[in-house]
Parts: sequence; structure tokens; C-alpha cells
Amino acid sequence: SVCERDSVSNFLYANTNMRLKLPITCFILEIILIILFGVLVEYDEETDAKKWHHSNHSQYDNDFYYRYPSFQDVHVMIFIGFGFLMTFLQRYGFSSVGFNFLIAAFALQWATLMQGFFHGMHGGKIHVGVESMINADFCTGSVLISFGAVLGKTSPVQLLVMAVFEVTLFAVNEFILLSILGTKDAGGSMTIHTFGAYFGLMVTRVLYRPNLDKSKHKNSSVYHSDLFAMIGTLYLWMFWPSFNSAITAHGDDQHRTALNTYYSLAACTLSTYAMSALTAHDGKLDMVHIQNAALAGGVAAGTAGEMMLTPFGSMIVGFLAGIISVLGYKYLSPILESKLKIQDTCGIHNLHGMPGVMGAIVGAVTASLATIEIYGNGMEEVFPDVADNKRTASYQGAIQAISLAVTLGFALVGGLLVGFIMKLPIFGAPSDASCFEDSIYWEVSSKKLLDTSKLYQLISEVWELNYLLVSVRYLGTREVTRAS
Amino acid sequence: SVCERDSVSNFLYANTNMRLKLPITCFILEIILIILFGVLVEYDEETDAKKWHHSNHSQYDNDFYYRYPSFQDVHVMIFIGFGFLMTFLQRYGFSSVGFNFLIAAFALQWATLMQGFFHGMHGGKIHVGVESMINADFCTGSVLISFGAVLGKTSPVQLLVMAVFEVTLFAVNEFILLSILGTKDAGGSMTIHTFGAYFGLMVTRVLYRPNLDKSKHKNSSVYHSDLFAMIGTLYLWMFWPSFNSAITAHGDDQHRTALNTYYSLAACTLSTYAMSALTAHDGKLDMVHIQNAALAGGVAAGTAGEMMLTPFGSMIVGFLAGIISVLGYKYLSPILESKLKIQDTCGIHNLHGMPGVMGAIVGAVTASLATIEIYGNGMEEVFPDVADNKRTASYQGAIQAISLAVTLGFALVGGLLVGFIMKLPIFGAPSDASCFEDSIYWEVSSKKLLDTSKLYQLISEVWELNYLLVSVRYLGTREVTRAS
Amino acid sequence: SVCERDSVSNFLYANTNMRLKLPITCFILEIILIILFGVLVEYDEETDAKKWHHSNHSQYDNDFYYRYPSFQDVHVMIFIGFGFLMTFLQRYGFSSVGFNFLIAAFALQWATLMQGFFHGMHGGKIHVGVESMINADFCTGSVLISFGAVLGKTSPVQLLVMAVFEVTLFAVNEFILLSILGTKDAGGSMTIHTFGAYFGLMVTRVLYRPNLDKSKHKNSSVYHSDLFAMIGTLYLWMFWPSFNSAITAHGDDQHRTALNTYYSLAACTLSTYAMSALTAHDGKLDMVHIQNAALAGGVAAGTAGEMMLTPFGSMIVGFLAGIISVLGYKYLSPILESKLKIQDTCGIHNLHGMPGVMGAIVGAVTASLATIEIYGNGMEEVFPDVADNKRTASYQGAIQAISLAVTLGFALVGGLLVGFIMKLPIFGAPSDASCFEDSIYWEVSSKKLLDTSKLYQLISEVWELNYLLVSVRYLGTREVTRAS
Repeated sequence: SVCERDSVSNFLYANTNMRLKLPITCFILEIILIILFGVLVEYDEETDAKKWHHSNHSQYDNDFYYRYPSFQDVHVMIFIGFGFLMTFLQRYGFSSVGFNFLIAAFALQWATLMQGFFHGMHGGKIHVGVESMINADFCTGSVLISFGAVLGKTSPVQLLVMAVFEVTLFAVNEFILLSILGTKDAGGSMTIHTFGAYFGLMVTRVLYRPNLDKSKHKNSSVYHSDLFAMIGTLYLWMFWPSFNSAITAHGDDQHRTALNTYYSLAACTLSTYAMSALTAHDGKLDMVHIQNAALAGGVAAGTAGEMMLTPFGSMIVGFLAGIISVLGYKYLSPILESKLKIQDTCGIHNLHGMPGVMGAIVGAVTASLATIEIYGNGMEEVFPDVADNKRTASYQGAIQAISLAVTLGFALVGGLLVGFIMKLPIFGAPSDASCFEDSIYWEVSSKKLLDTSKLYQLISEVWELNYLLVSVRYLGTREVTRAS
Repeated sequence: SVCERDSVSNFLYANTNMRLKLPITCFILEIILIILFGVLVEYDEETDAKKWHHSNHSQYDNDFYYRYPSFQDVHVMIFIGFGFLMTFLQRYGFSSVGFNFLIAAFALQWATLMQGFFHGMHGGKIHVGVESMINADFCTGSVLISFGAVLGKTSPVQLLVMAVFEVTLFAVNEFILLSILGTKDAGGSMTIHTFGAYFGLMVTRVLYRPNLDKSKHKNSSVYHSDLFAMIGTLYLWMFWPSFNSAITAHGDDQHRTALNTYYSLAACTLSTYAMSALTAHDGKLDMVHIQNAALAGGVAAGTAGEMMLTPFGSMIVGFLAGIISVLGYKYLSPILESKLKIQDTCGIHNLHGMPGVMGAIVGAVTASLATIEIYGNGMEEVFPDVADNKRTASYQGAIQAISLAVTLGFALVGGLLVGFIMKLPIFGAPSDASCFEDSIYWEVSSKKLLDTSKLYQLISEVWELNYLLVSVRYLGTREVTRAS
Repeated sequence: SVCERDSVSNFLYANTNMRLKLPITCFILEIILIILFGVLVEYDEETDAKKWHHSNHSQYDNDFYYRYPSFQDVHVMIFIGFGFLMTFLQRYGFSSVGFNFLIAAFALQWATLMQGFFHGMHGGKIHVGVESMINADFCTGSVLISFGAVLGKTSPVQLLVMAVFEVTLFAVNEFILLSILGTKDAGGSMTIHTFGAYFGLMVTRVLYRPNLDKSKHKNSSVYHSDLFAMIGTLYLWMFWPSFNSAITAHGDDQHRTALNTYYSLAACTLSTYAMSALTAHDGKLDMVHIQNAALAGGVAAGTAGEMMLTPFGSMIVGFLAGIISVLGYKYLSPILESKLKIQDTCGIHNLHGMPGVMGAIVGAVTASLATIEIYGNGMEEVFPDVADNKRTASYQGAIQAISLAVTLGFALVGGLLVGFIMKLPIFGAPSDASCFEDSIYWEVSSKKLLDTSKLYQLISEVWELNYLLVSVRYLGTREVTRAS
């Protein structure tokens, strides 16, 4: 009967078949990437055998030793962190980890080109090294945030299409902020989290499914899927200090950013547990809050993390981020869905959206309070324009605030447009009834882990039938006895 | 019926409700932390923009590049390692990972204050940087070891209360050892493992539950929970070289400590497998041994790891630690429970207690054998007091041995007192029947993974009923036939 | 009935009992290791307190800071990566992770001795430090690749026997290539992957089981076992850049190798997804391909990764490796099994064999194209013999090709001989019917996660019986009614 059901669904939604759609998309994209890399990309001074050995320096001057451990931590966040965080759905683990893997592998290549094109050209060539690897992973993170909003409701081809456009827009927005406006946003509260979140929310708004409740019973977790998701959560939590510090300046900047993020996250975890018990049913902790809101402290420290935020400032930021995030899950998400028709599977508005905006504001305020008293000669590295007297600290703060507005604009308009592209009925999106279901796109072993609710139902039916039989039998026997 | 059962248990043990207890505790603790951080904590010279740029040095002189990769490995051990190691229980995965997360996030902040207060004050201020982060994680590890003894039998509020006091006592003991006595204990065989283990054993002794067998059927593993636990085991095993070397001196010291620990663990793994097959039922390997005893080599190399223990010395230490640990699980733990009323859920006595004491002794012996022949100018970094002729090597060895006694004293007396505090009936501890059960403190999806033993029972009952029916039917028909 | 079945199987295959076999093997091996380490091994200049402090250098000159982060990434690949990659089997997770753990812990010690003996002796002593740790882990990786071929069909004692011989032959082959022929193979396309794969294939050929279909129903995955396997896959994928770059020269070499591998893997992932959808049933993605073939790009970049392969060259290599690997899983593996009697559980021929050979060829071609135009003074570090004019680039390319042939020869002949040794009926191999089954060697909780196919069968039997009863009852009543 499982087979029959499958063939029926294949018949009804035959367009979800990926035999040609996915290979064609992947092959075309990868061949374009290879050609463009062949034409445009070359090793930078630190990865090229000739260039590196041309000048005279110690081997430990190579940026590899300053940033590669951080890069690997970021890499784990992208592939394990985001991938497993989304495995909380009971029947969508393959897709969560697997599509995350696919779109990340594509996006990091495409991001290398787009980011290089906008702010990494050297004599007509894009230079690559550990810093471009980190930046590409960052941009990929933004796409994965948007993925969280549409999780369970999109085909892999749709997601690749989204990645193509989102990476491009990300690179434009990042270029405007970092290169034109001189904004500071090392951990990406704006460029990564705010952008990815509001872009994704707009996409899921456009892709609104009025009949999504047809697959509502699959849009929840089971015991072990929540444990898998905790692997994702913890890797994101542990390595967020590396994320925020990965591309800050060498020395005290990297060191301080990691430290600030560490405190922000620790404080956020306590307020998350507190708010979860306070708001959830019967005073019991809710895994959704723990898995997500405890990370808001990292998002909120993304802009100000490299500044002289102080440890206790970081803790206040994290503490508030955790509270906002849990409240969002509890009260705001249902409203967004019912009133604004925004179906946000992972609640990215609560984990990346609001904490991202908060992080941008904290960054603007902290920047505007910067003085040479506090930063000394370190001002040069945190706020070079302020150190060079090109702008005042409050002007820098204003620029930071404007950057948030620019980012929101790009995200919302971009998400709107890209959402409509993704809505074209050629990319193999699942039907309403087959959302949140791996077996649409994956070979799933017939020896499935059992859906126990179904089992209990089966067993209770058997039981009832037996009781019925016993009763009937008893009555029958009585009748017979009486008859005889 | 699941719901009914839940409401009954909520009625009977309504005090386990965390709606107010947990939020109040978390909020008060975090607000105190933020205030104290605001008053007492400031960036150290390597994280402060002004101070770092005041003096003249290369960026790679910043301690960040020497220790941050090790810090991240330690961080993974604390949150993934300890967290998942304890997920072996069939119905306690959320609590194992989740409470581990909560108390670690609290303890690392509190430890920063306590350790800073006792041995990190600079002009009335506590200085923070990567070294304080590592030390705070170490102290947290000690609390998590104690958590292992009471796993499944305590509420999150109780655990936070334990953390408040244990961190404080840890900092005092550490101060006496490292700062007053001049003890060497970089990997914490004494300060972390011995202290955490005997403290936790004393706490669980005070919290003794004579009727714990009411929840005995839940105090065991299922297939997948053992696999989750292996994630914890392997991360602890792999990163233990980073743990022991994280705060040793730069250069050869860090390098040698990592190497010694690597060999100790490898040898320990072989003796663990050997002993497990030798002692377990039918010559089959026991997951409990593999998950835990294979780590004893890291514990036992915690003190002597930075010394000139030699690779083969390290291997002997690890080899013996594995043997002792498996024997402990097999023969000693049952005795501790039946005779001494010590209910040690994770067997921390076998993983941290005995190997910790062994590590302390190995450290004392190795220290007493130190000569300038062996250490050369490196003596200055391993045994500064011996290098400066303030004490002889054998005196250093004696100090090491005394430190073990001090640590045991602090742990046992401290655990006793803190156990009685935790026993106050206001912290929402679970009833005897609801130990080892996530659903007391967590929203658990009703679509639980099935407890198959229960299922088999149900099915066999249905079967029996059917056979009964068939028999009755057969007899009935016979009767009827005869009657007609 | 589970117990009965177990005792029957224990009776029939009593020789799989490990009570004495495994402890004796482990103890003898570890004691030999300890003795040999005591006689032969000493700290190198960077781990010895005296030697390091004898000469004058900065602490950051210590190789620890150049290589330890890479070592830890490699370490994770060996224990988590390989271990969890093999947990895809439904009932073999304990053995996959657990035997991986055991043989890796042994092999890394033995490899330290063998590699040190062949190319690390200094005045009669083997010197150890971070580089020997990485090399030992590399050699261990080779054994684990071979383990993949025989997964589910061997006892732990057989695996230890295999490791003893394979490590030895690995060290000889590596010595011939790196030290005698002057081959470049930093990421081990030849020494690790090609050697491990063809050695393992030959072993499994010798251990051919004609009746393996007796346990065919267990040689497949369940839903959650595939998710566990993805943990392994992703860690291998993420850290492969560290693997290939771990022992290349400091500076640009490490940096460039990591970068090349990163691009190769990204491109490989896209071609893997494309080919999987193209070849698999109904256009659905196959987890086996994603888990394995997506890694082929790392294998194929193992030799040329440190060369000036260029980013787009790396992408072409990865792209082709993914295609070849999926085609291997789909079309070649069934032929190898049916025609050549090679039962390759994990498909190592597709992940390590063919991509390894491809990597060797790519390395030979890239080497032969090396010019001073491209490499500048960096030639000294990549091809020292070419830089010193001892050989031409095309001669270096020829040497690379010859090295592939040498490696294949060692692997095939070695695997043949070692296979016959492993076939001796004294090592406790499982019977045909008990392959792919943890409970032969492990205590497995009786509360197993249910095999749902069996459950559905049970339930349907109960249903049928009930229907039968209802029918009989109905007929009976009719009879009775009629009779009365």
C-alpha cells in the first residue's frame, strides 16, 4: 500500500520528477561556473607559488595561519550547523541536510564570482584565498537563512534558482555597504542575517500556500529529529565567535570579536531558557526555542562584536536578543502566518530577522559612541574613516543606520522579485499535500522508522475490534444458550 | 491515555512545574552576572583596542593565534562532547543535551568572575581574553562531570544551584593549588576531573533515592541513543589533546602535551576494548565501556601530559587507565550503589574519579623525577620553581601529592554541603517514578519513537486475546453443534 | 524469542565469541607497541623541552602552530568522518563506529612506528611530533578505506590483523614513492586512497561469500541511519581541504592546497546531485550517491592539490570525479560483484579507487606541465628536484605515473596475501546469515528500534486473523441461527 500511495502521488504531481530538471540545472550552472572561473579567477598573492615567493616574508605572515581555523569553523556552521538545525522535521531530514549541502556547494562558487566581481577585482582578475573562501561561505549563509523560511515547500531546482539571484543581490548590497558607504559589519548582522531573513520572508510570502494545512501533520518534529537538530544548534552556537571574528582585522580585533560573541551567546542562552519555560505550555521547555532563540545572541553581536562593546555590553545584547526571539516564536510567528500570509517554516524572522535588525541598531549606537579615548590607535582598524578624520563617530553611526535601511530595501524588493521567478510552474515544487516529505525527491528506504501515532491508532483499532468480537461472541453465546 | 497519564503525574508532582522557578532563577542569575561584569570585568591587553595598539608587537604575538583553535576544540568538548555523551539514556536526550547547554552557558560566565576574582585581578579589574575563556570552559567541565552523577534525577534549577556553588569551590581549590602551592595541573586531572567527580559523587550520595528502581526501566539505552552518545565520546576523545594542551606554555609545551595525550588515548582505547570483551556477558562488547572508559587515558594524562612523560610513558598511563575504568564499571559501580548508596548515573567515578586520582599520582611521580638533564632550559616553563632553585623536584612531587589530598577534601566536603542545599524541596526535583524522563521538563512530541518492549507486549496481548477467542469460538461452536 | 534466536546463533557460530580472542589480540599488540615505543621513539626537536629550548627561535616557529589545527581536522575525519559514514547500515552502527575507533586507535600507533622506521629515523630513534601524528592518521585512513570494503563481514580481530599488515605495506609503498622516487602526493591520491581501495577490494575478493544474500535484508539503510551517515559525509567534505594541505610546505603551499580542494569538492557536489537524479529510480536522489560520490572531488585533488592546478582546473577535476563516482555506484559495482566476486559494502572502488587513480593521473599531468614561469621560486617547495635541475617536469610527471603503477601493484598483491591470512578460521568471522549485524559482537539493548517491515507484517497477521474470526463468527452465527 505504501507503493501504491507513492505511485498515485507520482501520477498526480508528476512534475516533481527531478530526472531531467535537476541534472540540467546543475550541469548548466557548474559549466558556467567553470568557464567563468577559467576566465576570471586567479590565485591571490598568498596562494600563488610565484607571487608569494617573489616577495620576502615569513611563512607565518601568510593569512592562512590567521584565518584558516576560523574558516573551518564557519564551514562547519554552514554545512553541519544550518544543515542539521533544519532536520527537526520528522520526515524531511534528507532534504534539510541534502538540499542545504547542494545549494551551499553551488552558492559558495557563485558567491566567489559575484563578490569578486563587485569588490575583489585586481587588473581584471578575481583574486582568491582564505578571505574569499570565508566571504563566500558568509554569502552562502544568507541563502541558507532564506532556505529556512521555505523549508519543506520548495524543490531543489527552485532553491538553486533562488541562490543564483540571492547571491547576486547579496553581493550588490554588500558592495554598497562595505565599499561605498564604509559600513562596518564584520559578522553580518545586516549583510547576512537581516538580508537573508527578509529576503526569505518575502519569497515565502510570494509562494504563500493557502492549503498548506494538508501537510500540517508532517510539519512537526519527532523525538530523534529534535536531537539531530540540536547538533546543528550547538555547532552554530559554539563556532559563532569564529563566524563574527573570521574577517575582522588581525590581532586584538579578531580576539575581541570572538570574546564579545562568546559572552553574548552565553547570556542569550539563559534568557532563552527563562522565556521558554515562562511562555510554553505547562512550564515545560520548548525545543523550538532552545534550538533557535539561543543563537540570537550571535546574530545580534554581528555588527558591534568587533567594536569596544565591552563584555557586559555584549551580555546585555545577548540577553535581550534571546527574549525577543522567544517572544517572536511564541506570539509573532502565528500572527505573521495568519495576518500577513508569511509561512516561515524555521521561524527565521525570530532567529535572524529581528536579532539582525537589533544587531544593526546596536552597531550604529556603538559606532556613534566611539572615541579615541576608548580605541586609541586601534581606531584605525575598527573605524578607519573616523581615525583618518574623514568622518565623525556619530556620522559613522548614521551611516550604519542608513545601511540597515538599504539592506531591508534590497532584501524586500529582491525577495519579492525572486519569489515571483520561483513561482513559475516549471521548477517542480511539491503539491500542498506532499510538503515536508522527503520521499518526493529522495529514494527513502521502505523500512521507515515508524510514525508511532499511526501505529497507536492501528493497535487501538485492533483492540477495539477484539473487544467488539468478545462482546459479540458473548452476546452470541448467550443467544445460542438461550436458543438451545 | 498518554495525556491522562501526563496529567496525573503533573497533578502528583506539580512542584516540577518550571513556569516560574526556572525563569526566576535564570533571570536573577543573569542580571547579577551582567552587573558584576559591568563593575569588575574589562578587556585584557590582547583584546583591548587601545592597550594592544599602545605597545609595539606583531599581530601574531597575540595569544589568540596560539590558543583560539585549542579553545574551540575545548568548547566542542564541553557542549557537544559532554552533552551528547549523556544522551545514551533512551528518554533523556533533550535533558542531557539541553541541561548541559544551560548549565554550561551559566557556569562559564560565573567561572570567569570567580576565577578572575581569585587569580586574575589587575588593579581591581578582572581581565578577560582567550585564556580566561579556556579556563572558564575548564571550570564548566568540572560542573558537567558532577552533572553526570545526578543525570536524570535533578531539575534544571537544582543544577543551576549546584553550578553556583561548585564553580565557587572549584575556583578556591584551583587558586590554592595553582597560585599558592605552585602545583602543575594543566589538563586538570586534579582540579577538573578529581574535583568534579568526587564533588558529584558526594552530591548524589546526599540525594540518594531508595526507590529509584521505580524508574529503572528508563535508566538504560536504546539503539540510536547509544549512537548519539558515541558522537559525544568521539569528540571528547579526538579533542582531548587540545584540552590538556590548551593552557600550557607556548611552543614545545603545547606541542608535547598534545602528543602525550594522543598516545595515552590510543593505548587506552585498546585496553578498553580488551577489558570490555573480557568482562562483559558472552564476550560481547559493552557500549557503556567504549563510550566512557576509552576516554580515561585523557583524564589520566591531565597532569603529567605537559611533562617529559615520553610517548611510551603516556601509553602505559593510558593503557592502565582503560583497564581500571572498565573494571570500575563492571565491579565497583554496583558496590558503590548497593553498599555506599552512591547512585552514579554515568559512572563518573570510573571515567573521571579513579583516572583523575591516577593522573594526579602519575603527575607527582613524573614531577619528582624531573632533572635538568631531561628538561634543559625548558625546565623554566614546566617547573619554574625547580628551575629557579626555589624547590627540588622531589619537593615539587610532594606538593603535587598534597594537592590531590586538598582537592579530594574540597570536593568531598563541598559536595556534601551543596548536596544538602540541593535537597531543599523547592527546586522541583522529579519524583522517583519520573526520573530519566524528558517529558517532565520538556514538551515532547506525542509522536514519540516507540518503546519497542512496550509494543511487543501490546502485540503479544493482542495475539493471546485472539488465540483465546479462537479457542472460545471453537469450544462454543462445538457446544452449539452438540446442542443442535 | 529474540533470546532464543540469539542463543541458537551463538551455538552455531560459537567461534564469533570474542571473550578471549579480542582481549588477547589487543593486549599483545598494545604491549608490543609500548615496548617498541620505549626502545625506539623519542620527542622531536619541537616537542622536547631540552632540544627546543637549546636553540633560539620564536615560539610561533614551532610547527605545532602551522599544523595542529589541520591535524585536528584530519583527526575528526578519521574518527567521526569514516566512523559515521559507515553507520548507514540499519543494524551495524555500533560496529561501524566502534570498530573504526578500535582499528584507528591501533593503526595510528603502529603507523608511527612503521613510517618512522622507514623514513623518520634520526640516530636510531624515531622522532615524533605533529607531522608524525598527521602521517599516522593518514596511514590509518588507508586502513579505514579497506575496512569499508569488508564492512559487516569481518570480526574485530580480523580487522586488527588486517591493520597490522596493511600499515606495514603502506609504509613500504609510501617510502618507495616519497623517499626513493621523489613522488609528490601530499593528499594521498595514490598512497592513501588508491592503495587503501585496491588493497581492500583484493581482501574482500579473497573473503568472497557466495551465500551473502542470507543477510541481504540487513545490508541496507533505514531513515535515521542515513542521517547518521550524513554526519560522516559532511565532516569528510568540510575538512578535506585540511586533509590535503596538512603536510604540504608552510605558506602558499598549504593555503593553495586547501583552496584547490575546496573548489574541487564544491564542483563535485553539483555533478553528484546531477548524476544521482539522472541515474536513480524515478528521478529521485539516492542517499548512497550523496553520502559518497560528493567526496570524490577531495580524493581526486589529493596529488595535484598542492600544485598550480588553478581554481578552475580543480573544479574540472571535481566535476569529473563526481560523475565517475556515481556511474561507478550505479553500473560498475553490481558488475564487480556478479562478475568479479568483489563484494564491496561501501563502494570504496567508486569513492576511493577510481577517483584515486584519476587523482594520480591528474597529478602526473599537472606535474609534467610545471614551468618556472608558473611556479617561480615556489618551485623549490612543490617540485624540489625540478627546481634543482635534477629532473625535468616531464620526468617528474613520468615518475608520478610510475608511482601509480607501483601503488597498484603493492595494493593488489598485498591485499591478496593479507586476505588469505584473514581467511584463517581462527579470527571469529561472522556466519553468512549474521553479517551486517551488531548483536554478534555487541551487547544490544533488547529495546531495539523496531524493524518496521517486521512490525507491519505482525500487524497485518493480527488483522487477517481478526477478519477470519469475524467471518467465522458471522458464518457460525448464521449456522446457529439456521440451526435453531
